[in-house]
Amino acid sequence: MKIPGITLSVCLLLFTPLAAQAELFNEDDLAIARDLRASALAGNGGFDVVEDLTTRIGPRMAGTEADARAVAWAQAMLEEAGFDRVWLEPVTFPTWYRDFERVAVVEPVEQAFEALALGFSPGTEPGGLVAEVVMFDDLDALEAASDDQVEGRIVFIRNRMERSRDGSSYGPAVRARSLGAQVAARKGAVGALIRSIGTSTNRFAHTGTMRFDTAQRSIPAAAISNPDADQLERLMGLGEPVRLHLEISAETIESYTSYNVLGEITGSESPEKIVALGAHLDSWDVGTGALDDGAGVAIITEAARQIMALDQRPRRSIHVILFAAEEIGLWGGRAWADAHKDNFENYQLGAESDFGAGPIYAISAKVADEAWPVIEAIQAELEPLGIELGRRTASGGPDFIPSAPFGLAVVDLHQDGTTYFDYHHTENDTLDKIDPKDLAQNAAAYAVLTWLAAQSPIDFGSGPGLIGR
Amino acid sequence: MKIPGITLSVCLLLFTPLAAQAELFNEDDLAIARDLRASALAGNGGFDVVEDLTTRIGPRMAGTEADARAVAWAQAMLEEAGFDRVWLEPVTFPTWYRDFERVAVVEPVEQAFEALALGFSPGTEPGGLVAEVVMFDDLDALEAASDDQVEGRIVFIRNRMERSRDGSSYGPAVRARSLGAQVAARKGAVGALIRSIGTSTNRFAHTGTMRFDTAQRSIPAAAISNPDADQLERLMGLGEPVRLHLEISAETIESYTSYNVLGEITGSESPEKIVALGAHLDSWDVGTGALDDGAGVAIITEAARQIMALDQRPRRSIHVILFAAEEIGLWGGRAWADAHKDNFENYQLGAESDFGAGPIYAISAKVADEAWPVIEAIQAELEPLGIELGRRTASGGPDFIPSAPFGLAVVDLHQDGTTYFDYHHTENDTLDKIDPKDLAQNAAAYAVLTWLAAQSPIDFGSGPGLIGR
Repeated sequence: MKIPGITLSVCLLLFTPLAAQAELFNEDDLAIARDLRASALAGNGGFDVVEDLTTRIGPRMAGTEADARAVAWAQAMLEEAGFDRVWLEPVTFPTWYRDFERVAVVEPVEQAFEALALGFSPGTEPGGLVAEVVMFDDLDALEAASDDQVEGRIVFIRNRMERSRDGSSYGPAVRARSLGAQVAARKGAVGALIRSIGTSTNRFAHTGTMRFDTAQRSIPAAAISNPDADQLERLMGLGEPVRLHLEISAETIESYTSYNVLGEITGSESPEKIVALGAHLDSWDVGTGALDDGAGVAIITEAARQIMALDQRPRRSIHVILFAAEEIGLWGGRAWADAHKDNFENYQLGAESDFGAGPIYAISAKVADEAWPVIEAIQAELEPLGIELGRRTASGGPDFIPSAPFGLAVVDLHQDGTTYFDYHHTENDTLDKIDPKDLAQNAAAYAVLTWLAAQSPIDFGSGPGLIGR
Repeated sequence: MKIPGITLSVCLLLFTPLAAQAELFNEDDLAIARDLRASALAGNGGFDVVEDLTTRIGPRMAGTEADARAVAWAQAMLEEAGFDRVWLEPVTFPTWYRDFERVAVVEPVEQAFEALALGFSPGTEPGGLVAEVVMFDDLDALEAASDDQVEGRIVFIRNRMERSRDGSSYGPAVRARSLGAQVAARKGAVGALIRSIGTSTNRFAHTGTMRFDTAQRSIPAAAISNPDADQLERLMGLGEPVRLHLEISAETIESYTSYNVLGEITGSESPEKIVALGAHLDSWDVGTGALDDGAGVAIITEAARQIMALDQRPRRSIHVILFAAEEIGLWGGRAWADAHKDNFENYQLGAESDFGAGPIYAISAKVADEAWPVIEAIQAELEPLGIELGRRTASGGPDFIPSAPFGLAVVDLHQDGTTYFDYHHTENDTLDKIDPKDLAQNAAAYAVLTWLAAQSPIDFGSGPGLIGR
């Protein structure tokens, strides 16, 4: 069957995203977006950046000497990458240093467990403590327990994190880590253990912060690896009392000042309007933070490098923000929001890469209604990368959450996180876990998003109108 | 086309393994072999055994308190399994205790490595030592180096073990572990590091013994994980001197006495003739020794349990031998060979399971020529398990190697070891790495082999005639 060309073209204009694009972006901008996509896909995704960061700096826990080295490294790296302006913004936060932790069964048999203290856990007395274990299925079961069951014991919360592509299984599971010690302390426990909030059966404990209530006694808390949690469950199943030795040496520091490190590509037409890309520079202390979040640092830097290699500057400015102290409480994100809270109409759009190095499969956005067609048009240019249109809501990533009360418009480029929680917050988060091909797909997506967002004829609606949406 | 039944039968008799079986084994013995195969395949492969061993005992390094507990556990377990006789045979050996090890880069940056001291490594002075690293591609390159290159330094041998189904890639790679420190010491090194002899990119160091020459100074030696070895190579590649801090606290013990634990199914016709199944009871100190070699303990115990569940005892006797102190020098195997060296004509056949829990894919044997058709006939009954006929040579497994000088006939049931060296000698060797279905396939193969070997009308030729073959 022959279809007249003119009819088909009209159909396409009416019924495909090309219609939106044609209205929104001029052909030159679209052509550049496609060139950026191809060029970034053929590149290394910024692998050189994450390789250098994880090699020269390695683990870079917020508030350590390595944090300071990482800040200097990042400043030099952004300058070398050719940003028009590179600067630091101070971030002050409390932090926590791990010395060591030991968790071992002492009855009915002696066996050492693979454990990591949770961030902000107090230390034990030197030599540690020994107590019987009481096991709970999850935080709700602990909440429901009587003080009698818990008092003087070490609480063990055994809930297991399931695997998921979008990471949605993290939230329900991580409550045990965030709140377990606090609830256990309230009921008189002397210590808290959790099954690691992670999906691997490799014998790595997953650390992460616990919340603490300064008005209340805090108790030492640690995570044990999945195989050790299985073992503890089997030992509990023998029907004899199980007693553990728990020793933690750690220190909470009231105040340390680090820096968000920022680079700007200055816009050619509306330099005061900014598209903000984020990643965080700090990592946990145990791995080299390749996936969390060296990959994000690489991806957004590479996206910006691709744009800086163009013959022209974008209309709006682009900021690359390498946030400080994300892991221990989003302190870089909080400081950034606070520093720029009077200027949020100009921060057009925020998007952080902080979910490893898996390929991006969808784009979601929280933008003004009139800007949603722009997101659809951008998605059409991301489609060849395998990226679908997602939801009309987004968080922007952890470090942009503190900006939500100021109405920052945000985009999520959803990464496949199926294996992310195999490595997250473990000593096994190392460079070899990154596939440069996936990194390049990420960089290509960020380059396209960032370029088109900077060229968009429509603003994204940041400001009071977006608060609470 | 119609073929007369009689002709077809003759063809089968002449040209298929059925011919050999029909000549060698009577129909009742073959029927029982097939029942054993089906029954063991439907069973748990002895998973209860390895679960109990790894839970109640856990790591059981030769010469530790846990070794003694494991011996008591094994004796009770074999008695409960219903062996006709259970006994201990003493094994005396030197051993080695790990206290701790620390390996960290101190220049050009400070980073801690994931490391395990090698078995029989001497300790450093308290506080350890600091020295510059000199890197070699492999043991040959170190051998070829001048003393000037090595003197006063920490030698790092970077060769990487490749993955293989049959484990043949282990031998070439492990020379760095066995001999690296000795060669380095001879050239004046102060310490030796190796890339772990393992195939995983997870951040686990693989321990194992190093050889030492008592006539020569021994130096502290450790393995670092594959990701750490990658990191060290990258740091060396920066072109600045790399200095490491190496501290090991460990102790070599001159003499400890443990026990081989043996169980007998007493033969009905020729009880003095013995089919010997082996596995080793000890493990390294870091994991729970589920794959190495709790799985072997489970597999041979389950094979024997299947045979003990028959209405009749086999013609020959069957011994299950749980060897002591394999990991630190085949001491159980040496003691067994020495204790029985005057009786090797009666030890019909030896076969040890000590390569994890992967499915068996081939059978090889070192037997007298006249017994080879028996091996072929046995393989025909293993064929439905996916087991091919292998080579006319075999080692019998590590603990039967010391019996080779006495002419023990041996069989290898080759397991798929593709992932074995991901876990071997690491803290990640835990129960969850065992697939009960594969364990059952192994137990089925050992049950068929053991039953038919015990019923074989032909002896396997152990004794002087097999020495040196």
